[in-house]
Amino acid sequence: MKAYEYFISKNDVEKIHENVLRILSEVGVKFENPKALEVFKKHGARVDGETVYIDRKMLEDALSTAPEKFTIYSCTKGEVTVGGGSMLVAGLSSNIYIQEDGKIRKMTNDDIIDQFKMNETSPITNCARFNFFLDTSGMTPEQIAYGPLAMILKYSTKHHLTARVCALGLPHEKVYEVMRKGYQLMKRFEGVEDKVVIMEGVNPLSPLSYDYDPIEKLFALCDEGQAIWITPCSMPLLTGPASVAGTLATSVAETLAGIVLTQLVRPGTPVVFGNTSASTNMRTVQLSIGAPEASLINYATAALADYYKLPFRTGGALSDAKDFDVQAGAESMMMLYSTLSCKPDFAIHFAGTMGTFNVVCYEKYILDEEIFNMVQRILRGIDFSDEKFCFEEIKKVGPRGNFLRGRTPKAYREDYYLAQLFNKEDPMQWQNGGAVSVREVAKRKVKERIESYSCPEITKEQEELLAPYIPDKYRDGI
Amino acid sequence: MKAYEYFISKNDVEKIHENVLRILSEVGVKFENPKALEVFKKHGARVDGETVYIDRKMLEDALSTAPEKFTIYSCTKGEVTVGGGSMLVAGLSSNIYIQEDGKIRKMTNDDIIDQFKMNETSPITNCARFNFFLDTSGMTPEQIAYGPLAMILKYSTKHHLTARVCALGLPHEKVYEVMRKGYQLMKRFEGVEDKVVIMEGVNPLSPLSYDYDPIEKLFALCDEGQAIWITPCSMPLLTGPASVAGTLATSVAETLAGIVLTQLVRPGTPVVFGNTSASTNMRTVQLSIGAPEASLINYATAALADYYKLPFRTGGALSDAKDFDVQAGAESMMMLYSTLSCKPDFAIHFAGTMGTFNVVCYEKYILDEEIFNMVQRILRGIDFSDEKFCFEEIKKVGPRGNFLRGRTPKAYREDYYLAQLFNKEDPMQWQNGGAVSVREVAKRKVKERIESYSCPEITKEQEELLAPYIPDKYRDGI
Repeated sequence: MKAYEYFISKNDVEKIHENVLRILSEVGVKFENPKALEVFKKHGARVDGETVYIDRKMLEDALSTAPEKFTIYSCTKGEVTVGGGSMLVAGLSSNIYIQEDGKIRKMTNDDIIDQFKMNETSPITNCARFNFFLDTSGMTPEQIAYGPLAMILKYSTKHHLTARVCALGLPHEKVYEVMRKGYQLMKRFEGVEDKVVIMEGVNPLSPLSYDYDPIEKLFALCDEGQAIWITPCSMPLLTGPASVAGTLATSVAETLAGIVLTQLVRPGTPVVFGNTSASTNMRTVQLSIGAPEASLINYATAALADYYKLPFRTGGALSDAKDFDVQAGAESMMMLYSTLSCKPDFAIHFAGTMGTFNVVCYEKYILDEEIFNMVQRILRGIDFSDEKFCFEEIKKVGPRGNFLRGRTPKAYREDYYLAQLFNKEDPMQWQNGGAVSVREVAKRKVKERIESYSCPEITKEQEELLAPYIPDKYRDGI
Repeated sequence: MKAYEYFISKNDVEKIHENVLRILSEVGVKFENPKALEVFKKHGARVDGETVYIDRKMLEDALSTAPEKFTIYSCTKGEVTVGGGSMLVAGLSSNIYIQEDGKIRKMTNDDIIDQFKMNETSPITNCARFNFFLDTSGMTPEQIAYGPLAMILKYSTKHHLTARVCALGLPHEKVYEVMRKGYQLMKRFEGVEDKVVIMEGVNPLSPLSYDYDPIEKLFALCDEGQAIWITPCSMPLLTGPASVAGTLATSVAETLAGIVLTQLVRPGTPVVFGNTSASTNMRTVQLSIGAPEASLINYATAALADYYKLPFRTGGALSDAKDFDVQAGAESMMMLYSTLSCKPDFAIHFAGTMGTFNVVCYEKYILDEEIFNMVQRILRGIDFSDEKFCFEEIKKVGPRGNFLRGRTPKAYREDYYLAQLFNKEDPMQWQNGGAVSVREVAKRKVKERIESYSCPEITKEQEELLAPYIPDKYRDGI
């Protein structure tokens, strides 16, 4: 039984699909890039200006060539399969703001490094991410574009699924070439020519459109035979209609339109069906990612991915909190619970995110790890095997006896999660022992964690390959 | 489909039941009260010292007379049915400690009043509770015993399900009489003789025993024809075995043994099948109520209550936090999520509880209300009716359009929960606007709430009936 079945029936999924089809064929999707329009036309789609209409047949053909699972090759980290509940996850947050001791400030390059280290030393993440540099003064254009990717390749021990080639600020006509060169660099690093070595995100512009640059990126990925994840983040009543069902329908139509393009450009291109659409708070006119409706989007996305037989991305430890507070705890628990219940194949906001995606908080990284462990414990359920009923033990101890004797038994350690961050003291002991806050405990753990990071070894050849792309400051370690 | 089915199969339930039966018939349950032992003997149970062995037949007979639902009568608040997902809930916390501005201190009578007011003015609770007085100086024994009950009857507009007759410090031989007199007072207040007007808790002493006083209370309730909830709170590795399955089996055996006694004393006595067993933190040797395993106990309790066809109590907004912090948010979300998913018929820690049951925090009351609303929104699922797909709207707005126009539409307000406490601002707007904390917002709301309380009207006769039991200080209002 799948967790989403409690929320979404087969019939609901089919209803969403019928609405998606109607949108694709009657409303259409805008592709603001002549190359894309050319491809659609060539394959017989109706194109009106920049609007492309996709019919059932074209969608079904695309879904039939998109693989249910695919493998990402790495000579250094081993192959990894995306699909079937692969749970390839990274903590990633913004490169905009950081929350520190109750205050929000702008991020620096050093913060980007610390975020990377938090992710590297995290027991719950298995993928690496590196944010784009904020201060690029003194860096070459190549370092700006490929620096984040080169930093991952040089300094991470985790799967480097996502490319992080930076095309910010480049003229449109350069995007394709810069991206493509990045994927080629990855292949050279891995020493292969014809394998999938990277997966990269291409996001629609809700509602129902793709702008120029992401389409260039999509072509670059297809042309290099790499994998693509497509993740709309639609805001109801702004970039999506006023309802959850409507926002689902438009955002799914966006994703599928992108997937159709990938399959027309290069049939068999591995794609991930994503959705992180959420809520809009109309009092502040802000995206709200720590929203109950976002939990429902997680379940719906899982259900639709099963229906379309595609790997999927959704959710994370998402919160709109501005501080390390009750809201951060409650929203992250809500969102990680639904996310982990859905078992996404891939997710990139698994720890440390707050403030509607735009704020990073290192202490929240530690919090989200605790929440992750708690939720995974719940989802493991209860072991009802005979020996777990401890009948002989119960008989021996008897009514009004005490089960505590000697060392903590294995059965207990197997069944009960031991909190790593949360306070389980007696209230007065805590108060009299200095009332150390959970924030303080998290802060100490953050410091230990960042200090515990050590650089992995790579070969001399790999080192030399990456050298031109690594900014001087980080060439000899981070 | 029930939420627990994701965690507990029919087969699991039957396995628990078989283990419970084995415990009841082979290990037995201690009843430290001669009246109870007499009743069991009279009905043919094997009794060895104070240990009673209950066989399958005796259990099945008891379960066949215990009602699946029952009604609690009130001339003032109307009848209410317990069972079938009745969700009769109250916020209640400790009368021991209070968390205020980051510090824990001992509670006072004024705090008891404020707690009561928080519950009275809460939009999520429908039952009243009033804690026992802490400072009883100047109070008569009758005021100490019946004061809390009389305070509820005089000052609450909510269902006064739970009697709160206080027998603390009384000699054992007085308990029965004092309790019984309290239930009679309730009947006089409601102007009935032969109806269920109250429900009261009788808790086992884990593992597998009942001490003297609760049994006296059970007899008093049965003899007055009132309803009883039985709720063990077993601690694994101390008062329960080292596993979740084992702790479930012993605690369920405890509850059922108590239920058997109620049906032997007075067949048809309405009973609630409860369980708030949780985890033990072995580092601190403390009960841990904000534990993933406690969420699983919620689901198992719901499944077993269905199996036994009994109304049930479980869960609440339970947390071990010592402060209004990330832990309070995360644990309360986890526990309220599983609790609300299970839809208990009755629960009494729905808001404000922290610190392993022993600490109250008013701000957490506001937090738990927010969490309650968020979880209820999730559990409502997605409305997939045709009009919610907004096809015409989508067509009108078209690709890359904007859905915002004029006033916020009804469809949006129906679908999206609007946060009452949590911060949904833009990060820098928040920072530049004074960085008002969620704690500060909650604090303001607490003050407003407590001040908004106003005493309800009762009849002159009811007023006179209660007068002797209300401490002087509270006679003319609170």
